[in-house]
Amino acid sequence: MSHGTISEHAFPGAGAPPPAPISLEEWRQMEQAALFTSEDARYLRMSWDVLRNQVDDVLDVWYDFIAAHPFLLRTFSRRSDGQPDQRYLEAVRQRFARWIETTALANYDQQWLNEQYEIGRRHYRTAKNQTDHVDSVDIVPFRFIVPLVSPLATTLKPFLAQKGHPPDQVEKMHLAWLKSMLLQVTLWSQPYLREGDF
Amino acid sequence: MSHGTISEHAFPGAGAPPPAPISLEEWRQMEQAALFTSEDARYLRMSWDVLRNQVDDVLDVWYDFIAAHPFLLRTFSRRSDGQPDQRYLEAVRQRFARWIETTALANYDQQWLNEQYEIGRRHYRTAKNQTDHVDSVDIVPFRFIVPLVSPLATTLKPFLAQKGHPPDQVEKMHLAWLKSMLLQVTLWSQPYLREGDF
Repeated sequence: MSHGTISEHAFPGAGAPPPAPISLEEWRQMEQAALFTSEDARYLRMSWDVLRNQVDDVLDVWYDFIAAHPFLLRTFSRRSDGQPDQRYLEAVRQRFARWIETTALANYDQQWLNEQYEIGRRHYRTAKNQTDHVDSVDIVPFRFIVPLVSPLATTLKPFLAQKGHPPDQVEKMHLAWLKSMLLQVTLWSQPYLREGDF
Repeated sequence: MSHGTISEHAFPGAGAPPPAPISLEEWRQMEQAALFTSEDARYLRMSWDVLRNQVDDVLDVWYDFIAAHPFLLRTFSRRSDGQPDQRYLEAVRQRFARWIETTALANYDQQWLNEQYEIGRRHYRTAKNQTDHVDSVDIVPFRFIVPLVSPLATTLKPFLAQKGHPPDQVEKMHLAWLKSMLLQVTLWSQPYLREGDF
């Protein structure tokens, strides 16, 4: 699967997402603030070789975590009866799989920034539920987005060790993932903020 | 120095900060989302025995990091001439020292939640510069707050290893700090958000 294909699948039907209100220069400053360097990008790409055959297993763990916490599962519930919408969960899962690949390929350019802004809009009132035409709660509460970096990063680590890399390389892949996730949840926050506060 | 004394020093003159618009129940959900447990609180308290004599050294590293990045140092600059305000930097540094202790003591109750909201207000337009009566930029841009968890957590780790704890205990102290920082930057974000979005 080529990188180009992923972007198309992640944003089906809509063509390229509109420009994010953040410049590449502002993004480079964010990378510096997170100590994210080209070495991290290299370890992320190394992680793709490790993860590419484990994506479904990773998602099983992450979805189990969500399912075990009603206040998280609520994000995927129908407004009509409060029950989880399986079609919605499945549609998001497919994008989640592509997100693992996109994160690991680490081509963090303006097109990617635009995609992150679109992901943020899909968490916020501006566009939640629209992509999958579901009738669910109208926002992912902000207070869960950043904290979820912890279980996602923690549960990813054993998968990164599955292909026999030495512990220091596993550690560096893990740290690169952590930095990338910190940066991405920040980008996803932009639609929640007033203009000029980001 | 007792815990009570810290709270008084961290919020001088103002008495107790006003109630944060978050309930203890919502906070407990955030802890669960971050996989933060009583074991993490225990490792944070263990970390205080390690860090208490190294606080100034930790702050030297963190302040050097800020000083090395003009877009971060700008947060502490005077509006009149654009230069860093040394008195402001020093006043924040004293609160930063107390923040290390408060984080490590891990008494995360409603009073502590109120204090985190007040810290958030001091980052945002609502109260930045007021505590120290300085004339600086009127907001800490949101895009740097979450990414800074990376350098703070990364540079803290060697300090956690300074008292001869076995690697797995150092690792657990470090992870507990990471989780706590993720949760705290989330709490500090609340003043940036519209009511109902948090």
